[in-house]
Amino acid sequence: MAHKIAILGASGYTGAELVRLLSTHPSYDIVALSADRKAGQSMGQVFPHLRHVDLPVLVKIDEIDFSGVDLVFCALPHATTQNVIKALPSHLKVVDLSADFRLRDPADYEKWYGQPHAAVEMQREAVYGLTEFYRDDIRAARLVACTGCNAATGQFALRPLISAGLIDLDDIIIDLKTGVSGAGRSPKENLLHAELSEGTHAYGVGGVHRHLGEFDQEFSKLAGRKVEVQFTPHLLPANRGILATVYVKGDPQAIHAELSRAYADEPFLVVLPFGEHPSTRHVRGGNFVHLGVAGDRRSGRAIVIAALDNLTKGSSGQAIQNANLMLGEEETAGLMLAPVFP
Amino acid sequence: MAHKIAILGASGYTGAELVRLLSTHPSYDIVALSADRKAGQSMGQVFPHLRHVDLPVLVKIDEIDFSGVDLVFCALPHATTQNVIKALPSHLKVVDLSADFRLRDPADYEKWYGQPHAAVEMQREAVYGLTEFYRDDIRAARLVACTGCNAATGQFALRPLISAGLIDLDDIIIDLKTGVSGAGRSPKENLLHAELSEGTHAYGVGGVHRHLGEFDQEFSKLAGRKVEVQFTPHLLPANRGILATVYVKGDPQAIHAELSRAYADEPFLVVLPFGEHPSTRHVRGGNFVHLGVAGDRRSGRAIVIAALDNLTKGSSGQAIQNANLMLGEEETAGLMLAPVFP
Amino acid sequence: MAHKIAILGASGYTGAELVRLLSTHPSYDIVALSADRKAGQSMGQVFPHLRHVDLPVLVKIDEIDFSGVDLVFCALPHATTQNVIKALPSHLKVVDLSADFRLRDPADYEKWYGQPHAAVEMQREAVYGLTEFYRDDIRAARLVACTGCNAATGQFALRPLISAGLIDLDDIIIDLKTGVSGAGRSPKENLLHAELSEGTHAYGVGGVHRHLGEFDQEFSKLAGRKVEVQFTPHLLPANRGILATVYVKGDPQAIHAELSRAYADEPFLVVLPFGEHPSTRHVRGGNFVHLGVAGDRRSGRAIVIAALDNLTKGSSGQAIQNANLMLGEEETAGLMLAPVFP
Amino acid sequence: MAHKIAILGASGYTGAELVRLLSTHPSYDIVALSADRKAGQSMGQVFPHLRHVDLPVLVKIDEIDFSGVDLVFCALPHATTQNVIKALPSHLKVVDLSADFRLRDPADYEKWYGQPHAAVEMQREAVYGLTEFYRDDIRAARLVACTGCNAATGQFALRPLISAGLIDLDDIIIDLKTGVSGAGRSPKENLLHAELSEGTHAYGVGGVHRHLGEFDQEFSKLAGRKVEVQFTPHLLPANRGILATVYVKGDPQAIHAELSRAYADEPFLVVLPFGEHPSTRHVRGGNFVHLGVAGDRRSGRAIVIAALDNLTKGSSGQAIQNANLMLGEEETAGLMLAPVFP
Repeated sequence: MAHKIAILGASGYTGAELVRLLSTHPSYDIVALSADRKAGQSMGQVFPHLRHVDLPVLVKIDEIDFSGVDLVFCALPHATTQNVIKALPSHLKVVDLSADFRLRDPADYEKWYGQPHAAVEMQREAVYGLTEFYRDDIRAARLVACTGCNAATGQFALRPLISAGLIDLDDIIIDLKTGVSGAGRSPKENLLHAELSEGTHAYGVGGVHRHLGEFDQEFSKLAGRKVEVQFTPHLLPANRGILATVYVKGDPQAIHAELSRAYADEPFLVVLPFGEHPSTRHVRGGNFVHLGVAGDRRSGRAIVIAALDNLTKGSSGQAIQNANLMLGEEETAGLMLAPVFP
Repeated sequence: MAHKIAILGASGYTGAELVRLLSTHPSYDIVALSADRKAGQSMGQVFPHLRHVDLPVLVKIDEIDFSGVDLVFCALPHATTQNVIKALPSHLKVVDLSADFRLRDPADYEKWYGQPHAAVEMQREAVYGLTEFYRDDIRAARLVACTGCNAATGQFALRPLISAGLIDLDDIIIDLKTGVSGAGRSPKENLLHAELSEGTHAYGVGGVHRHLGEFDQEFSKLAGRKVEVQFTPHLLPANRGILATVYVKGDPQAIHAELSRAYADEPFLVVLPFGEHPSTRHVRGGNFVHLGVAGDRRSGRAIVIAALDNLTKGSSGQAIQNANLMLGEEETAGLMLAPVFP
Repeated sequence: MAHKIAILGASGYTGAELVRLLSTHPSYDIVALSADRKAGQSMGQVFPHLRHVDLPVLVKIDEIDFSGVDLVFCALPHATTQNVIKALPSHLKVVDLSADFRLRDPADYEKWYGQPHAAVEMQREAVYGLTEFYRDDIRAARLVACTGCNAATGQFALRPLISAGLIDLDDIIIDLKTGVSGAGRSPKENLLHAELSEGTHAYGVGGVHRHLGEFDQEFSKLAGRKVEVQFTPHLLPANRGILATVYVKGDPQAIHAELSRAYADEPFLVVLPFGEHPSTRHVRGGNFVHLGVAGDRRSGRAIVIAALDNLTKGSSGQAIQNANLMLGEEETAGLMLAPVFP
Repeated sequence: MAHKIAILGASGYTGAELVRLLSTHPSYDIVALSADRKAGQSMGQVFPHLRHVDLPVLVKIDEIDFSGVDLVFCALPHATTQNVIKALPSHLKVVDLSADFRLRDPADYEKWYGQPHAAVEMQREAVYGLTEFYRDDIRAARLVACTGCNAATGQFALRPLISAGLIDLDDIIIDLKTGVSGAGRSPKENLLHAELSEGTHAYGVGGVHRHLGEFDQEFSKLAGRKVEVQFTPHLLPANRGILATVYVKGDPQAIHAELSRAYADEPFLVVLPFGEHPSTRHVRGGNFVHLGVAGDRRSGRAIVIAALDNLTKGSSGQAIQNANLMLGEEETAGLMLAPVFP
C-alpha cells in the first residue's frame, strides 16, 4: 500500500523536483502540497511541466490534515522551517530540505545563520542526511536533515579520503561551480537571465559561505580533529549541476583506488577511470554522482572532481533516497531515472 | 517476460534518448547496440550520462545476432536506413526513426530527398508513426516510420482542425522554433556552440524544408484535397524543444473546443485553457505535448501554439510509444517521466 | 566643443547601453546621470562593465543642474516619463526612450497603456524617432520619442513595402523572437535565468502587445487606410537580439528589389542577397539592421526577416542616432562599432 | 597616414575579432585578408557581423602582395605559423597570435607542442606579447608573440605578486573557467552546442595544458627560480570570457595593495575594491582586465580572481595593443570600446 506524502513549500524548485521524482515513484501518494503565497493555485499553474500529474491543489500549511500522512518533505526556507517542523504532529516522519537541522551544535547554527535556533532539542535529534554515510541512522530517524547541495558534492569527493588518512588535512581547496537553480525562485535582480547568462563569477568568497558549517562539522568529525577547508563557489550559466574541483595533497593513484573501493557497491556513485573527468551535463536530472581523479606533474598532488545535479542528488533526490530508507522501501525506488542529455 | 530490443545507430542523440527512456522501461531488455564508427566502445564512453546503465558494448550492425531479438529501433541517417532495414530478418518488428519510410509515394521521397528510394516495396508497407492518429495500423504493423520532429509538432496543432473543417486550408503558416539537438551530433561548423548560442536565425526558408513532404502528405490526405502549408523553422539556442506557432483563419473558440475534444483522452496531450500558452521548457525530457490557442483582435484569425521535446515525443519517445503498441504493452509504459524543469 | 549630455534612468539596461555607446563617442560629454533607487552609487558599482569610464555619480533627478546641459536622454519607465519631461527646462533637447510620446493620438495612448496621458500637448509635438524615416523632423525637433524595439524591427521590414504598395495590407503577420534584455532589469520571477534559459514561449499573444499601437499608427499613416497587422512576440533565451519573421502576400523578387533600393544609401541597413537570412548573433551590440527576403513554393507569398539588437538599434543606438541629428553631428558618429560575434 | 595591415587566418575567431576591432581603429587600413579554405569568399559571407565593413576579399597567403604592407597579424594555427612567418618579407612587422613563438627555449616548445621548432632563430628573436610587462621590448620588436589567453589571465593575477615576493611559490593553484570560443571554429563533436551548453567540465587536467609552458617560463624568470603552478581549465557554457580563480599563500591585504599599486596607471587593468570580485560578463567584448582579491578565514591565504575576454584582451585586443606600440601609435588607440553587457 502506498505511503501518504505531504510536501511543504511545493512552489519552489526543490518542491517541484520532489513532485517530478515522486510522479513516477511506485509506492508514494502525494496527498497534500503547501505553498503559502500561491495557495489556491494548482501545481500545474505554478509549474506547467507538472500539468499532466494528478495532484492536490496548493494550500496553506495549517489547512493540511496530517492525520493520514506518513511522511512530510519540508522544502521551506531556513528559519521558517524550525517553527513549522516543531509544530508538526509527532507521528510524522520528516525529511527536511532546509539548512535548519544540518548542524549539530546550536552555536554553529547561530554562527553561520546569524540567529539563535528555535528548536534546539530537535536539532540534536536530527540525522544528517548524506545517505551513503548515515544509512543506519537515517533508517531509524524521525527527522532527517538533507545536506546542502554544495556540501554534498564536496563530501562525496573527500569523505573516503579523510577517513582513510590519504590527504593533508590542512590544504584542501574546493573550487566549486554551481548552476543557478540552487539560488531558488525568488525574484532578485542578481538572478535575472540577463545578469547570469553568458558568464561566470565567484560569490561567497573568502570563507563565508554557509555550507562551510557542514564541511567543518563533518570533516572534523571524520578526522577527529579540526578541519577547515577553503571553499569558493562560482555561479555557472546553466540551471542545474554542481562541479566541485577539489585540490588535495596526497597520492593520486591511492586516492583513486580508495574512492573506487569506497563506492564500489553504491548504486548512485560512479567513479570514472583514472584520468577521466565528469561533466555536469551528464548527471543533469539524475540522482547520480560522477567522480574523477587526476594527478599533477608534481608528485603528491591530486585533483578530485565531483559532479551532481543540485536539485536531484543535491536536494530532492537525496530527500527521496532518505525517505525510502525511513519507510522501508528499496533505497533506489523511483530514483533510477537516467540523466537527460543533451 | 521482457522483450528483446536492438538499437541501430546508438551513438546519435536519438539513439541515446532511446536508451535513456528504455533504462527505466519495465518490460524491455536492450540486447544489442550498434554504432558504426564507435564500435568497440561502451555506451558509457560515448554517452557518459548512461554510465550507470548495464548495456551491451557497441558493435557494427553485421555483428548482431538478430535471432533472439523481437524489435529493432533504427536510428540511422536517411538513405543508409533503407538498405539496412531491407536486409533485416523478416521476423523482426522495426521502428524506424529516419526519414526513409515516412512518405508513401516514392516520387515524393525522390523529390524531397533527392534520390530514388531503394526499398520501394517496404516504403508502401510502412505505417506512419504519429501514434495518436494511427494506433490501429501501428499495432498491426511490422515497420513503423516515426515522424519528423517538426512534422509531429505541426500535426498535433493542425490535424483535428483540418479533420473538423474549422480552418482555411489555403492560409496556414507554421512558424517553428527548434532546439539544436534536432540537427544531430555531426561535427559541423554551423552547429558549434559559438555559432548557435545567444541568438536565433531561420533556416530552410521558402518552402524547402523536407518535413514539408510529411505535412503535404498528411494534411492533403486528411482534407481530401491538396494542402500546402507555409513552414519556416528557426534554430533556438537551446538543446531540446520545438515550439510551433501556427497562424490559421478560423474561429479561435471553436478551434480550442475541437482540440480539447480531440485530445480529451490522450495521455500525452495537454490542451491549456484558452489564452494560455506553452513553453518548450515545460516539456523538456518528457513525452508530452502542450497546446495553447488564442484569437486575434481581428475576428476569424487564430493562433495555435504547440510545444514538445524533439528528442522525446518528437523522436525516441514516440518510437517507444509505437513499440509499446506493436508489442502489446501499455501504450504509456516507460513514458510517464515528468519533464525536467528548470 | 563637446555637447553636454544628461541621462535620466541610467540604472536600467537602456541607460547602461547609452553610456556604453557614448563612452567612445567623439563629441559628447556625460555631465549627469540619474537613478532614483541607486542614487549615491557610482555607475561602475551598478554596471561593472563601465568601471573604466570616468562618469559622474548617480543622483536623483531633482539634484541635477540642467543649466549647462544640451540634451537629455530619458530612459525612464512609461507614465513616469511624461511628468519628468514636462518639468524639464525648455532649452533642453530631449530624446525619450520610453513609450510615452510614441503615439500621436492621446486616445491611442490611453487604449494601449491603460491611463490618460498627462502631457498631451507635448505628445503632439513629439517626433517619432525611427531615424531613417523621420530625419528632417528629427533634426528640427526638441522632443524625439524613440520607437519600441519590436516596433522598429517590424517597420524596417515593412515600411518600404507598404509605401510601394507591394503587399496585401490585410494579411501581414509578424512572428517575432526577442532577447530577454528587452524586459528590463526589474526583479520578476518570470525573468529569472532558471525560468527563461533553455527554451522559448510566446507572450502578449492575440493582438494585445502594446507595440501594436505603433504599428497601427505608422502603417495606417503610410497606407492612407487602417492597417492592422498580426503580431506575436516570443522570448528567446539570449540577452540581446530581435528577429522578426514577417509573412506577407506579394512578389518576393519585387520585395527584395524594393528593400534594396530603399536602403541602398542607409549606413545601418544591410539587405542580404535574395535567399540569405539574418541572424541576431550578427547584429549583437551593433547599430545595424540585417534584412533577408525569400519566396515560398506558392507564388505570391514572401517572407521578410529582419534582425537587430534591441538595446542598440532598437533603443539606445537609435537614440544616439537621433541625438546626432538634433545636435548637428554626423548621423553615424559613435555608432559604427561592429557587432560582437561570437 | 594610415598604416597598411594584413591579417593571415582571417576566417577564425581571432581573425574576425581583429577585423571587428580594426573596423573602428583610427589609423589602420586592412589591405589584405587571407583564409586558405575560404579564399574567394568575402569576409561578410564568412562572418556576417562584419558585412557593413568595406574589406578586401579573402585570398590565399601567396596571393598577397606584401610590398605595401606595414604590419601583419598572423592568426594561423601553431606549427603552420612558423613556416609562414619565416617566409614573410623581412620589412614586415609581425604580430603573431599563435603559440609558435611564445616559448624562448626550443626544447620547451618541443616538450609542450610535440614537435621540433622549424624557425628556431626567429623563436629567439620574438618578444613575448604581454604588453603591460614587455612594453619597451615590444616597441622595438619586429616579431611579437601574443600570449595564450589562459596564460595572460593567470599572469595578470600573479606577476606583481611574484615580483614583490608576496606569495609562496610552491603552492599556487590556478582554477580557470573559459568560454568556448577559445577552442576555435573547427568542427569537432566536443564543441557542438548540444555538447557544451548547460554545463561545465574540466579539461587538460593534471598538468598537461600547453599554457603551462608559458606560466613556467614567465614565472620562473620573474622569480629567478623554477616555479611550477597547478592549473586546471574548465569549459564554461558561454562564448567569451575567462575567469581565473587563483589560490595563493600570502597576506590578502598586502596582495591587494600590490596589485593596486602595480596597475595604478594601466588603462586596461581595473583592480576592484578589496572583497569585490569580477565577472566575465563585465569584460565581454572589451580589452579590460578586472581583478579582485579576498582573504580566507585562515590567515595567510588569499584568492585573486582575474577576468578578461579571451578573444579581446586574451588575443586580438592584446595583438592590436602590441601593434600600436610597434607602429608608434597610442597604446590604447581603437581599444577603449566598452564591454557589451548584458
